[in-house]
Amino acid sequence: MATLSPPANPESNAVVKAVFDDIRHTRGSDFINNIWLYLANDPKLLQDTWSEIKSVMASESLLDSKTKEMIYIAVSVANACSYCVHSHTAAAKARGMSGEEHGELMRIIALAAKTNHLVTAMQIPLDAAFDADTKP
Amino acid sequence: MATLSPPANPESNAVVKAVFDDIRHTRGSDFINNIWLYLANDPKLLQDTWSEIKSVMASESLLDSKTKEMIYIAVSVANACSYCVHSHTAAAKARGMSGEEHGELMRIIALAAKTNHLVTAMQIPLDAAFDADTKP
Amino acid sequence: MATLSPPANPESNAVVKAVFDDIRHTRGSDFINNIWLYLANDPKLLQDTWSEIKSVMASESLLDSKTKEMIYIAVSVANACSYCVHSHTAAAKARGMSGEEHGELMRIIALAAKTNHLVTAMQIPLDAAFDADTKP
Amino acid sequence: MATLSPPANPESNAVVKAVFDDIRHTRGSDFINNIWLYLANDPKLLQDTWSEIKSVMASESLLDSKTKEMIYIAVSVANACSYCVHSHTAAAKARGMSGEEHGELMRIIALAAKTNHLVTAMQIPLDAAFDADTKP
Amino acid sequence: MATLSPPANPESNAVVKAVFDDIRHTRGSDFINNIWLYLANDPKLLQDTWSEIKSVMASESLLDSKTKEMIYIAVSVANACSYCVHSHTAAAKARGMSGEEHGELMRIIALAAKTNHLVTAMQIPLDAAFDADTKP
Amino acid sequence: MATLSPPANPESNAVVKAVFDDIRHTRGSDFINNIWLYLANDPKLLQDTWSEIKSVMASESLLDSKTKEMIYIAVSVANACSYCVHSHTAAAKARGMSGEEHGELMRIIALAAKTNHLVTAMQIPLDAAFDADTKP
Repeated sequence: MATLSPPANPESNAVVKAVFDDIRHTRGSDFINNIWLYLANDPKLLQDTWSEIKSVMASESLLDSKTKEMIYIAVSVANACSYCVHSHTAAAKARGMSGEEHGELMRIIALAAKTNHLVTAMQIPLDAAFDADTKP
Repeated sequence: MATLSPPANPESNAVVKAVFDDIRHTRGSDFINNIWLYLANDPKLLQDTWSEIKSVMASESLLDSKTKEMIYIAVSVANACSYCVHSHTAAAKARGMSGEEHGELMRIIALAAKTNHLVTAMQIPLDAAFDADTKP
Repeated sequence: MATLSPPANPESNAVVKAVFDDIRHTRGSDFINNIWLYLANDPKLLQDTWSEIKSVMASESLLDSKTKEMIYIAVSVANACSYCVHSHTAAAKARGMSGEEHGELMRIIALAAKTNHLVTAMQIPLDAAFDADTKP
Repeated sequence: MATLSPPANPESNAVVKAVFDDIRHTRGSDFINNIWLYLANDPKLLQDTWSEIKSVMASESLLDSKTKEMIYIAVSVANACSYCVHSHTAAAKARGMSGEEHGELMRIIALAAKTNHLVTAMQIPLDAAFDADTKP
Repeated sequence: MATLSPPANPESNAVVKAVFDDIRHTRGSDFINNIWLYLANDPKLLQDTWSEIKSVMASESLLDSKTKEMIYIAVSVANACSYCVHSHTAAAKARGMSGEEHGELMRIIALAAKTNHLVTAMQIPLDAAFDADTKP
Repeated sequence: MATLSPPANPESNAVVKAVFDDIRHTRGSDFINNIWLYLANDPKLLQDTWSEIKSVMASESLLDSKTKEMIYIAVSVANACSYCVHSHTAAAKARGMSGEEHGELMRIIALAAKTNHLVTAMQIPLDAAFDADTKP
């Protein structure tokens, strides 16, 4: 159940068709998942969002694509986005994340959440040593 | 400004002293940052928290320590924990995160937050393809 | 699936009946959506919540009712409240929000989330120019 | 640094004066903390907020006032509201929360945050046994 | 729908079996809810999580077990963890939380969320009186 | 205190200079606030972020610029981004938001947060009437 309906024939729009074709080509798969289908209601927003995802997540960079997906999962969990947790866990697995690595990711996310809340509860003051601005 | 004061002489408590010594030894540094100083009000909580941090973050594992710190940062940002963002950014730098890698981390966190909110705003339904339970 | 069951005959309670009648009258519709049905377990909480909603959202004010619903959606998305996103998107549409306006709302919410996370990740210090307290 | 300035002479407004007097009387103290001082910019919002706080937190009820403040702290920590964590920790201490009880509160908040994130990361499906609606 | 499948025969693993037996014994019930079933994919994480839950939530302490569950609910609501809200509401009811007490919990959570957002929106500065560090 | 230092001479970089010039020209002011100064560490991220802000917030659209800033504030409050609340409250005031309108915004944000938490605490099920997908 969504707050809007996906378009009936999304690829009748030329912008949508070009984005969907690029998604298929980039991923080497015919599967278009729901976020893109629903974003097709707004071709410009679809295009910009895909372009940013492709630039950040699907292009050559210092961080490998599996690590990038694991960071994406971490943010999505803390923001309680169920769909995002699912889609990026699937992506991380597709990029080689093993069950053991997933287990490590679970531990880091859980521990970070725990200390985030402890620190906020105690309102720990910042150590002067962490101040980047004081560095020459 | 914290919600409790750090103990006057934390290392007069044997449990606290043992934890602080282990922090110094594990890190190869005399610096004890504030989270440990304030947790020293409750030696058992200090001991358990350090033990979990050491086990998850400071021990040999599949994920390298720089990657683990970057995931920790991601969760801490989404949970808006200022102290945690500072301390784990310092830790990630100490483990070799370059300015360029930090830039990539910023982009992934920002993009994840963006699509987390887009997906929640549109209430995108889950694709059947993401269902782990249906997998044999 | 809720954490409590809705009452069997909510309108047998006089307070509940009065609130439900006022909801129907204010909205010009017989439809009572689930939040009110479940809140009827606690007639005082139902009454206070409806009274506040009516005062803030359904009365004459400087902001028009469509704008108010769009702000409500923005908060509900950031708080990851699925039901609230649905009910207030329906309300915004009922108050005239077009598909194009919904698209603009999506962009603002997504961009705000992105810069919120960027700013928190970098821990940007506040500009002195933003300090209301220094204004005469 | 706030987004608005407190009024110069808040108690020259009769509504504000009545609320401030009631705060002093209810608490048996002359101290008016900043939330009320800043809310005095909008006497109606001040009055409604204080009235709700007084009704929920300062009146006789099944839960004792110390417990209520500890629940308030828990929500405020998870919502990362620094001011609220401070003011309600002070209130809980004033209502008798000991250092040991504060330590237990820290553990519960930290553990809840940890399992909240674990559950969201794994997207654990709801057990049928938790379904209140199926109960007769 | 979860991001991983529960193990086919979890209790064929000795660690899992020991934890499940302890869960059954501690609770005096044969019911193993889903969080434990899914965590069984990672016996060490299962063991550590149960051990912490048992230590914090199921052992003798200053706070009674009903109060502890209500605090757990408060955090889980603010973190938008649906499963956690369900499981800990069931636990609080099992430990004697009445409908009236649940109603009070609702009011406190709702009011805290309201003032958390008000305070953040106005960026209320901290009162010097709240500063624990200045206390001798 | 930030997690990175602003560049010493940001405008010695041609991309940064072009963005800063465009910020000054778009706003009709020489003031460059800190988010742009710190983003100048990463000229491409600076350029992309400004370009998106300009496109969404500073260009002609259906929603007026004051309304857009108020929606931005709403998201920023719920995400607990102190800097963002400050900078967008300043922007909303600069675009004509009156004190009374700010008061209405406070009320809507506070009420939304309250019902978001109530709904999550009760896990209110979605009404069939909200289902966009069932609409022809």
